[in-house]
Amino acid sequence: MFNHLQVESLNQPLFEPIKTAIQAHIDNKTKPLGALGLLEQVASQLALIQYAKKTGVLNSSDKEQLNTTAIDPILINQAQVFVFAGDHGIADEGVSIAPSAVTRQMVLNFLNGGAAINCFCKVHSLPLTVVDTGIIEPLNDDEKNEQFIEQRCGASTKNFAKQAAMSANQCEQALDYGYQLIQVKVKQGCDLILLGEMGIANTSSAAAILAALTKQAPEDCVGLGTGISEAQYQLKLDLIKNALPRAANDEPISILQEFGGFEIAQMVGAILSAAEQKVAVLIDGFIVTSAALLAVKIQSNCRDYLIFAHASQEKAHQMMLAELNASALLDLGLRLGEGTGAALAYPILQSACLFYNEMASFDSAGVSV
Amino acid sequence: MFNHLQVESLNQPLFEPIKTAIQAHIDNKTKPLGALGLLEQVASQLALIQYAKKTGVLNSSDKEQLNTTAIDPILINQAQVFVFAGDHGIADEGVSIAPSAVTRQMVLNFLNGGAAINCFCKVHSLPLTVVDTGIIEPLNDDEKNEQFIEQRCGASTKNFAKQAAMSANQCEQALDYGYQLIQVKVKQGCDLILLGEMGIANTSSAAAILAALTKQAPEDCVGLGTGISEAQYQLKLDLIKNALPRAANDEPISILQEFGGFEIAQMVGAILSAAEQKVAVLIDGFIVTSAALLAVKIQSNCRDYLIFAHASQEKAHQMMLAELNASALLDLGLRLGEGTGAALAYPILQSACLFYNEMASFDSAGVSV
Repeated sequence: MFNHLQVESLNQPLFEPIKTAIQAHIDNKTKPLGALGLLEQVASQLALIQYAKKTGVLNSSDKEQLNTTAIDPILINQAQVFVFAGDHGIADEGVSIAPSAVTRQMVLNFLNGGAAINCFCKVHSLPLTVVDTGIIEPLNDDEKNEQFIEQRCGASTKNFAKQAAMSANQCEQALDYGYQLIQVKVKQGCDLILLGEMGIANTSSAAAILAALTKQAPEDCVGLGTGISEAQYQLKLDLIKNALPRAANDEPISILQEFGGFEIAQMVGAILSAAEQKVAVLIDGFIVTSAALLAVKIQSNCRDYLIFAHASQEKAHQMMLAELNASALLDLGLRLGEGTGAALAYPILQSACLFYNEMASFDSAGVSV
Repeated sequence: MFNHLQVESLNQPLFEPIKTAIQAHIDNKTKPLGALGLLEQVASQLALIQYAKKTGVLNSSDKEQLNTTAIDPILINQAQVFVFAGDHGIADEGVSIAPSAVTRQMVLNFLNGGAAINCFCKVHSLPLTVVDTGIIEPLNDDEKNEQFIEQRCGASTKNFAKQAAMSANQCEQALDYGYQLIQVKVKQGCDLILLGEMGIANTSSAAAILAALTKQAPEDCVGLGTGISEAQYQLKLDLIKNALPRAANDEPISILQEFGGFEIAQMVGAILSAAEQKVAVLIDGFIVTSAALLAVKIQSNCRDYLIFAHASQEKAHQMMLAELNASALLDLGLRLGEGTGAALAYPILQSACLFYNEMASFDSAGVSV
């Protein structure tokens, strides 16, 4: 079983000095300095990650070799969207606009191509994989297709208003499932991971994780999810407030076990796995960012591999992003999950790569500096 | 010659009542109400425009027919980027980071595929057309290719710090050139226009146009362009302040003639032409928005056809957007022009269409409401 505390290649951050060569490459493109804004940051980050992957080292003293390798084209040949789905015991309390049955219904919707994420994947030719991490009722064989992976850790988590959402074993199992899946996918050639999720009531988990990890006020961490009433909001807030004292310390795995969903835990494993293999991860909204926050608390250097796709309508998402010292690429007022924000941000990464790889330099284009 | 004051089909706004049917179609998709944020607004606007184009009417009493036509798939079959390039006499004053020669150099860069806009067009398979509206030195025949159109109104505008940028004839000619070009392109099947521009010193024109049209303080309208020094900024501001009294009234064509570039004038004609033919226009940054503002001041109903791609780093762009009651889709810190923001926003329009057309309804997907 994967030991989350021993991801050796994450003992070092990405090799910063190479950034100078990367920035010089960007600055010599036919545009005013910095005129491509966030795209320049994305290109720089992807080039830095690729350099680490290609050279296999995070440190080098051969400055000449650094400079030439760093400005190799950035390649994204096999991006893939993973939607991790799981059910949450706390849904029984009525903290969401929809019943838990909708998680399974939406999994089928994903497999049948009818959801928003399917549309956005289609626009960008992104392959989609749906992972059952523990929905209440598993799919029947005739409901499954080649886009579906079953990595069940149970039939829903327990209601965290009353007890820990998972056992220690379930939590470890979930981390390992996510980790192993991405190990395999990267070995098959996947070079960009887009993460999304589905799980009725999982904003409750994400809010509790944020509050427990950062000790910020529950009132600020808990939001309206996909659009609950004021009464439901008050209930959600009270349940989370009552449960928070169970997170006696700020140890991320304990917090994950106490409040987290199986889908969140598997995404934590997936993020650590991608970072270990030096593959960038495009993070969706509030729920996926809670997994990112946990992963970074476990291994701080995995932050180097994360790109944040969009700012969710869920207000506490901004607090998570601030905690991660991150700003999001898009702010489209989305509050849907499923990886929709990540899929919508994907073309920005493609565009960042292409300008880095193909845009003319001042010299080559004969443009006066 | 096109008479900008007689665009008959713009005498009426888009037919609002049909919005109800469009919204019902969106609300029945398998997602919480409003969860796709700005994409829902874009889909609604495109559906409304397409309804007007398809039915040929802006008003109807046949409610049944309205409802069925409104939810036809939204089609974007032939989007096209137009980059209007022109030189500005005021560049002689040193108000830009680059000399006027760079306008022509960048036109060649566009035709040779080396600029940022080329990269972003390539990512999204967008055809690009470059229009010379009046750069100082015309291209030689061997420099031209099939992406190039020559619609010159002069060899640069005059220096508007000293005199009107264009004669009345030049201004009319420029409006007509832009108008006729889009008439032809739409007849050839173009169903989405993306506008971009290139012209050293054209933020000076756009800032003066904004100040003259809205009577807002020049200090708020003038910005740093692509990155000028404090001394250059002060010069730019002083020159614009001194020139502004020449705009005695707020008549948009007079203001355009006084301060505008040829590329801005041609884009005003292009926008009016697209709107007249009920084709949506995706507006790029600060300069293109100045053309949009002029077009809306000329014919207020053309606002219905405009989608604003991104919020430029140029601070006064937000004032323009506010004046147009618009919010931008992207905020990526861009300050490059060329249509780069429009090209980057294009996949959001594609995604909006696809969710509108293909996403399952609650009924069809068997998802509990």
